[in-house]
Amino acid sequence: MTIKAFVFDAYGTLYDIQSVATVTEEAFPGYGDIITQIWRMKQLEYTWQRSMMQRYADFSVVTRESLVYSLKLLGLTYSDDAFERIMDKYVHLDLYPDAKAALAALSGYKLAILSNGSSGMLNDLVKNTGLDQVLDATISIDSERIFKPAPQAYTLIEKKLGMKPSDVMFVSSNPFDVAGAKSFGLNVAWIERVTPQAMAAEFKPGAPVAPVTMFKAVRTQMDELGFLPDHRIRALAELPKVVGK
Amino acid sequence: MTIKAFVFDAYGTLYDIQSVATVTEEAFPGYGDIITQIWRMKQLEYTWQRSMMQRYADFSVVTRESLVYSLKLLGLTYSDDAFERIMDKYVHLDLYPDAKAALAALSGYKLAILSNGSSGMLNDLVKNTGLDQVLDATISIDSERIFKPAPQAYTLIEKKLGMKPSDVMFVSSNPFDVAGAKSFGLNVAWIERVTPQAMAAEFKPGAPVAPVTMFKAVRTQMDELGFLPDHRIRALAELPKVVGK
Repeated sequence: MTIKAFVFDAYGTLYDIQSVATVTEEAFPGYGDIITQIWRMKQLEYTWQRSMMQRYADFSVVTRESLVYSLKLLGLTYSDDAFERIMDKYVHLDLYPDAKAALAALSGYKLAILSNGSSGMLNDLVKNTGLDQVLDATISIDSERIFKPAPQAYTLIEKKLGMKPSDVMFVSSNPFDVAGAKSFGLNVAWIERVTPQAMAAEFKPGAPVAPVTMFKAVRTQMDELGFLPDHRIRALAELPKVVGK
Repeated sequence: MTIKAFVFDAYGTLYDIQSVATVTEEAFPGYGDIITQIWRMKQLEYTWQRSMMQRYADFSVVTRESLVYSLKLLGLTYSDDAFERIMDKYVHLDLYPDAKAALAALSGYKLAILSNGSSGMLNDLVKNTGLDQVLDATISIDSERIFKPAPQAYTLIEKKLGMKPSDVMFVSSNPFDVAGAKSFGLNVAWIERVTPQAMAAEFKPGAPVAPVTMFKAVRTQMDELGFLPDHRIRALAELPKVVGK
């Protein structure tokens, strides 16, 4: 087995989805954390629910719907302008600090993104952050009209990149995505950004928790679905190591 | 349109899933709330993820896997006995206080459950709580090997009960289930147990929250998926009203 390509998840893996907290907090002081966490939790839930209901709508729609849900939940009123300013952050998300150097260290491999994002959102995001200069392809699940972790989503790597699953190292920080990619048959490196020790230390008996802690509790720890990653690393910078470089 | 049957969701609708908090708190003092919420959140996530991955495993498996996840998350160690004592509550969940009276008030209609639960779990639960005396059928999605909100799950009402969707009032407190049932074409009554006003009041700017508040934030408010219930009521006791009785 020789790895010829690295294919990355976008939201949460190359891009820090928590970076929306700056704009949510600015728009609604004191509510930045809760909006950020509920928004992301519902955004992914909606991708799963719409897929299962056979009611696909693209990720830009799902992202808007989940933001509406989050603001209603808190009883917040807002102008269209304020709403659009928050949404706009989704095409200007912060890259993780080590993302560009990590991609540069993998030159010689095919490099691509495979994301739930719509083609429009992804192309804007990649361009706005300069990754269009280093990626060979930015693949949206749009054309399959079903979200990850459905196997149809992962078939797009071979369809668009011409690479067999065995030749590809798929990289994600999202446990559901790791399970889906493994179940499909890809080689998978998991970016474990929150260790079990750090996670457990955030809980004190009987104490309330920060919304971000609940988000981490639900979405950052390896799932018990019977599909484990081949590689478990702490940061994108460790990727050359998983292919023996 | 004449309603001939009421079909109920089980977990969260007739049965109070929060009633597991007594056994989780007893087993792990100070951690009852967090275990209860993460367990339920992950349990449903796993039903969606397994459905999408085409890796069905029945609800008893998913319920065990999500409990394992929850205990690992907190760094808790436990004996097999302690684990089984918690699991056992799932076949002895508390009925909502008005459930039996509400079902009695609907005598004359066909009454059934349609649930994600496995046949074994559901039959035990229904028997242990005496609902076997009043229900005409307890339908598990098991035979379709896909969970709600997939349309295949809702087809079982006609298959097992011989009732067309237009003759059925489906009752659920779970917004994802309401959306799935409406998308499929059933008449739907939503039990809205947490009003938007009560929900919003649980959040104070910048303050940490109880785990149960985060659960309610994610799983009790009507979803923005474009499928709204026909009836919005506060308790099971109001069901006769929705059919004009």
